[in-house]
Amino acid sequence: MEESALRAMDAEQLREHAHKMVDFIADYYKTIQNFPVLSQVQPGYLGKLLPDSAPDYPESLQNVLDGETSYFDSYSIAGFLGEMLSAGLNIVGFSWITSPAATELETIVLDWLAKAFQLPDDFYSSGKGGGVIQGTASEAVLVVLVAARDKILRRAGRGALPKLVMYASDQTHSALKKACQIAGLNPELCKLLKTDSSTNYTLSPEVLSEAISNDIAGGLVPFFLCATVGTTSSTAIDPLPALGKIAKTNNLWFHVDAAYAGSACICPEYRHCFDGIEEADSFNMNAHKWFLTNFDCSVLWVKDRSSLIQSLSTNPEFLKNKASEGNMVIDYKDWQIPLGRRFRSLKLWMVLRLYGLEGLRSHVRNHIELAAYFEGLVSQDTRFKVVAPRTFSLVCFRLLPPPNSEDHGNKLNCDLLDSVNSTGKVFITHTVLSGEFILRFAVGAPLTERKHVTQAWQILQDKATALLESL
Amino acid sequence: MEESALRAMDAEQLREHAHKMVDFIADYYKTIQNFPVLSQVQPGYLGKLLPDSAPDYPESLQNVLDGETSYFDSYSIAGFLGEMLSAGLNIVGFSWITSPAATELETIVLDWLAKAFQLPDDFYSSGKGGGVIQGTASEAVLVVLVAARDKILRRAGRGALPKLVMYASDQTHSALKKACQIAGLNPELCKLLKTDSSTNYTLSPEVLSEAISNDIAGGLVPFFLCATVGTTSSTAIDPLPALGKIAKTNNLWFHVDAAYAGSACICPEYRHCFDGIEEADSFNMNAHKWFLTNFDCSVLWVKDRSSLIQSLSTNPEFLKNKASEGNMVIDYKDWQIPLGRRFRSLKLWMVLRLYGLEGLRSHVRNHIELAAYFEGLVSQDTRFKVVAPRTFSLVCFRLLPPPNSEDHGNKLNCDLLDSVNSTGKVFITHTVLSGEFILRFAVGAPLTERKHVTQAWQILQDKATALLESL
Repeated sequence: MEESALRAMDAEQLREHAHKMVDFIADYYKTIQNFPVLSQVQPGYLGKLLPDSAPDYPESLQNVLDGETSYFDSYSIAGFLGEMLSAGLNIVGFSWITSPAATELETIVLDWLAKAFQLPDDFYSSGKGGGVIQGTASEAVLVVLVAARDKILRRAGRGALPKLVMYASDQTHSALKKACQIAGLNPELCKLLKTDSSTNYTLSPEVLSEAISNDIAGGLVPFFLCATVGTTSSTAIDPLPALGKIAKTNNLWFHVDAAYAGSACICPEYRHCFDGIEEADSFNMNAHKWFLTNFDCSVLWVKDRSSLIQSLSTNPEFLKNKASEGNMVIDYKDWQIPLGRRFRSLKLWMVLRLYGLEGLRSHVRNHIELAAYFEGLVSQDTRFKVVAPRTFSLVCFRLLPPPNSEDHGNKLNCDLLDSVNSTGKVFITHTVLSGEFILRFAVGAPLTERKHVTQAWQILQDKATALLESL
Repeated sequence: MEESALRAMDAEQLREHAHKMVDFIADYYKTIQNFPVLSQVQPGYLGKLLPDSAPDYPESLQNVLDGETSYFDSYSIAGFLGEMLSAGLNIVGFSWITSPAATELETIVLDWLAKAFQLPDDFYSSGKGGGVIQGTASEAVLVVLVAARDKILRRAGRGALPKLVMYASDQTHSALKKACQIAGLNPELCKLLKTDSSTNYTLSPEVLSEAISNDIAGGLVPFFLCATVGTTSSTAIDPLPALGKIAKTNNLWFHVDAAYAGSACICPEYRHCFDGIEEADSFNMNAHKWFLTNFDCSVLWVKDRSSLIQSLSTNPEFLKNKASEGNMVIDYKDWQIPLGRRFRSLKLWMVLRLYGLEGLRSHVRNHIELAAYFEGLVSQDTRFKVVAPRTFSLVCFRLLPPPNSEDHGNKLNCDLLDSVNSTGKVFITHTVLSGEFILRFAVGAPLTERKHVTQAWQILQDKATALLESL
């Protein structure tokens, strides 16, 4: 390498290159509105643009950046700054001793957040519980599932493993099924109970009670219940108080997944969505979803941290130290799957401090208002129908099919989705509820304004008109 | 919020604040040599410095940064720039359609790396295998363990789960035991076979063969073998060719963990450490350990990606799309635990392009030379002994006890460790090999130079002299 080549670490070289990178990223955001929201490329496109081996000798940053073209959306300036600082420090704080600051800031920020959500005292670090940052809700639900599994097996014996039954509604996130697969549970006993429009796609306490009774009668061992506050498909809110009571009676670990809708509960007018949370053993919300925090940052609270630690701790010689042995500190390595962990509390801390709770409340309210505005637009066009209650920032709707439609308008709505998304100006997703293909309009990007919603609706109306005329 | 408050996203506000953050990080590196390498704080120190609730209203960035004091080490400028760009774009590319660039760049960079390591063709994405970036080696070993578990259960039936046996040496990383716990394996059948100095703490093929024969005779089902290239304690290299043969004969999934030492194998003179890798079903190395890439970035290759996908895929309605349904693309969500994932290939790509393979080779060689230099210093002082062969950048050594020592010098070496680390100038770790407390001197930080090694040795000698005189 030449004298001027990039060193592994050098304060002045870092300053020079990182300033260039800041301008690259800021320029990207200046021009972001010109990019299509969904990629228009074909599989394999990138391989054609890049060489087939890593370079033997260093290239310049300018050369590398010139080849960069992307089209993604970000979360917030504060979230980015926190991620940038975390990357700059590059600490790997798995135990207190390896980074007291990373450990203690995480505990403090999660206690702050527990307070902001008005959580019961059991979830604070000062008691037997506490919060921990996981990468995603998938990891959050996996670690509590494993803790619950081991807790029941300690009582019922390891032989009970193939008889353990897990319950959730059929609207639960797919991460739960995956967690069951990883944890070695019997896939047939991961029961996703049917929901329908009669309960607005929430889990019925009666259906749950009946399933549990039948399973116990059949010699099985119910052990886990997952309820959702804000399902992926339609933001349905399971009835936590009634479900919690059933969980308690039957000695199930009760987990509440509020990955998406949890953010709304910092607003007093939405806090009631958490009613019943006092019955939960654990719950999580994704700060990276709707809380202005860059991915990844899923926040998990448990009431009984010792259950987590019993399942996830290992204590090899090379990590032993006085602070840990003395039980004076938290070692988050024992609350999660990996050993190493990034300093993720830094970005949550940046978000909380640079926006404040009031700033976050405004952000959430603004998105909900925009969704309500979209809902109003849909309601005024009799060709469309809103198909599930809109509580937060998601509207589920569909184009009504002509009276004699064979497939209840499923193809029609699927075609409308393709037609709208192919413009590259809007990105609508879909779901299936009670066999019907449903369109989902979600307000989530930080840059969304009223004019974008109006424009999206205009495109939807135009494409619907064209489709209906072509029938 | 006031008019001038920080917006969620605004190109010019991002530019202004991120430039400030760059200077904050660069200034930190300018003064890093003044900080102690191990924290001197007491548990709970941070809670005393911070308020007990999140602020209701926004604070300024300057105000937040003024409170920041930390002491960590980082990896490289290129790694940082890659992480910064990834955070700036904040893409969450779990399936090809959500981010073709993130998906395809990962495939390309991992094929580049497979080439740089001279891996067998089976590990390239063009065949039935391929590479994927996991967060850490813990996740890498967990996903292959689950894939192997399900593969054998498909053949032997789910009833075989409590009979599955996993093998590794007692020098294997603790992550493997944790993965077994999470995957629901019988903890008594996770067999960590004893090693000793007669094989330099590598797994003996004879010991393994015997264990497998006994277990089969006992009605158990051997299914997984993990070998290590560069153990945590002493960088021992398990004999891959002989172990691979045994795995093949007995139909075990053969995983090779090269988390630390894998990096060295980009140098032709160390590539022989990978000899036998052609027998492996999977292997991983941590680019964040010794490859100038910021944490987290563990690279995993498998020969049969369909086994991984069968265990880890879920296909909910809201993620369905034509590219995935047509099997035209890779959806990395089915190769890992979580659904969401960061654009981690970006930092590996930055490292490969900004340093080039030759730059990485120089980096590795430089650390190995420094470790060899330290080894030479230890060898010249007859009060000390090097206790395991030094192959890479770690030296295992101890202070010899006086002839009549009761505990073979364990307390003496433990005291020496404390005494050296309490200076705040050096950070030495320890391990236990064959019951003996051993000191570990690892060269790993990018800023380490010969003068630092000399200084560390000087401190060790001085503290040893003081300790021996006090006996």
